[in-house]
Amino acid sequence: MTRPLFGCIEAGGTKFVAGIVAGPDDVRETARFDTLTPDETIGATLDWLRAAQDQHGMLAAIGIASFGPIELDRNAPNWGHITATTKPGWSDTDFAGRIGRALGLPVGFDTDVNGAALAESRWGAGRGKPACVYVTIGTGIGGGAIVDGKPLQGLSHPEMGHIRIPRHPKDMQFPGICPFHADCLEGLASGPAIKARWGMSLSELPSDHEAHSIIAWYIAHMVVTLQSIMEPGCVILGGGVTATPALLDRICAQADELGRGYFRGKASDIIVAPGLGDKAGLLGGLALAQDILATPS
Amino acid sequence: MTRPLFGCIEAGGTKFVAGIVAGPDDVRETARFDTLTPDETIGATLDWLRAAQDQHGMLAAIGIASFGPIELDRNAPNWGHITATTKPGWSDTDFAGRIGRALGLPVGFDTDVNGAALAESRWGAGRGKPACVYVTIGTGIGGGAIVDGKPLQGLSHPEMGHIRIPRHPKDMQFPGICPFHADCLEGLASGPAIKARWGMSLSELPSDHEAHSIIAWYIAHMVVTLQSIMEPGCVILGGGVTATPALLDRICAQADELGRGYFRGKASDIIVAPGLGDKAGLLGGLALAQDILATPS
Repeated sequence: MTRPLFGCIEAGGTKFVAGIVAGPDDVRETARFDTLTPDETIGATLDWLRAAQDQHGMLAAIGIASFGPIELDRNAPNWGHITATTKPGWSDTDFAGRIGRALGLPVGFDTDVNGAALAESRWGAGRGKPACVYVTIGTGIGGGAIVDGKPLQGLSHPEMGHIRIPRHPKDMQFPGICPFHADCLEGLASGPAIKARWGMSLSELPSDHEAHSIIAWYIAHMVVTLQSIMEPGCVILGGGVTATPALLDRICAQADELGRGYFRGKASDIIVAPGLGDKAGLLGGLALAQDILATPS
Repeated sequence: MTRPLFGCIEAGGTKFVAGIVAGPDDVRETARFDTLTPDETIGATLDWLRAAQDQHGMLAAIGIASFGPIELDRNAPNWGHITATTKPGWSDTDFAGRIGRALGLPVGFDTDVNGAALAESRWGAGRGKPACVYVTIGTGIGGGAIVDGKPLQGLSHPEMGHIRIPRHPKDMQFPGICPFHADCLEGLASGPAIKARWGMSLSELPSDHEAHSIIAWYIAHMVVTLQSIMEPGCVILGGGVTATPALLDRICAQADELGRGYFRGKASDIIVAPGLGDKAGLLGGLALAQDILATPS
């Protein structure tokens, strides 16, 4: 029996990546599209998926790991929509429903970070770990947690970038850049928040610049708060900021110092880099497509 | 068919409450024991359960909602133990195993707050709510989250009192009383932290004292952080501090102000008082006993 083929979409605010995927190590073809208007970008993705299906064979399901916020409640009239986003033109966009109707296929739909968290927990750095958290720290900060194989959510998906953390003693004046919450984690430690204070990225600053320890301190506070709330078996840190050389080591050391041995997981054992690299997004689509195919309809 | 009878234990650092319980509205008998040494208190509880079983009929299972930290991993050699507690004499105490062996019964075992969270989500203020969080704010601060009917946990149970939060601008000097983390949530907003600053409890302070808004501000930060991480359908706030008149309203208003409409759940809709009152602990034992009976062995 041949493996089912899935159409996978990693939908970001800057670009979409679409792929025909049979397994985590079996990506048949991919394509990229700039994120323009919904009609242009969703239309181009659909055209490509149709053509790819003609070439590679029938797809079994679609998986979409999307920028947000999105509506996840399958009983809501606007399930599958991108909801109140700051991305111009994309608020209240029917996305998953449109793709599913156009192709006549079931669609798994979740946030980009929940998709990446699922993929990392299934095939990457989080394999076999109870409560696997994936956080990306770049232009924004977002995260997802996988518990018992499923994304953790209540009324909606997490918005982990918006947790509140203490201010670093050497960083009391900067107001923070989050348009909603000023000095939440994203307002203090995202890429734009770093540029707003120091004029360049963490990687461009000298390695002895205090920005490194300040940003590591903020991210370590997030880790300790996650430990307090769910004792994750791993915290996978992705994104451009986290890729700064030596930052992960600084975060680990700082988080262990903050935890003072109180938590079961030693921070330096649970904080890891992504295992799937830049494939986590597309493979998030794969995980979501697999799961929707396995869901009784 | 008669309903199965359960032996339920709410094990606190000050007192144990044991009960013979057939359902949330069917508590047949209870007894209280001061928490002395493990041998004395576990022994007295066992003697009482045996006598109660003679009187009320055979028990089907035992449920223990215990102070912690405890070992929850049923594959660990020290499953069912109270581990490294600050309570003198109780570190590394075999608790659930001893009870189970002595009575020849299956034992459900979890933290007191996970038990209360389970009971509240099953029969109390959290019924039907996705991701139900219960937090008690009193001598200490602890919490549990119920997701898909089960306590949220990774490597171990949560220690929600130890999340990190910003400092209130009018409370920058107080060092915090947590022996591990100084100014974590428990170090700043627990009952002893309130007494350490202001010499009395929040209920004893005048209602226009700034302590009310400072403590509400801290607890509201916890709520917003919980919303960021899991968008709980309800956050049930129990414990002596939270019972201060008007404090719940202050917390709701503050949390909505902090959230700025960003989260799906309006804080004033999701923050609620416990529905089971002081029965949450014992009924936590009931929920744990029911669940262990339903678990395939």
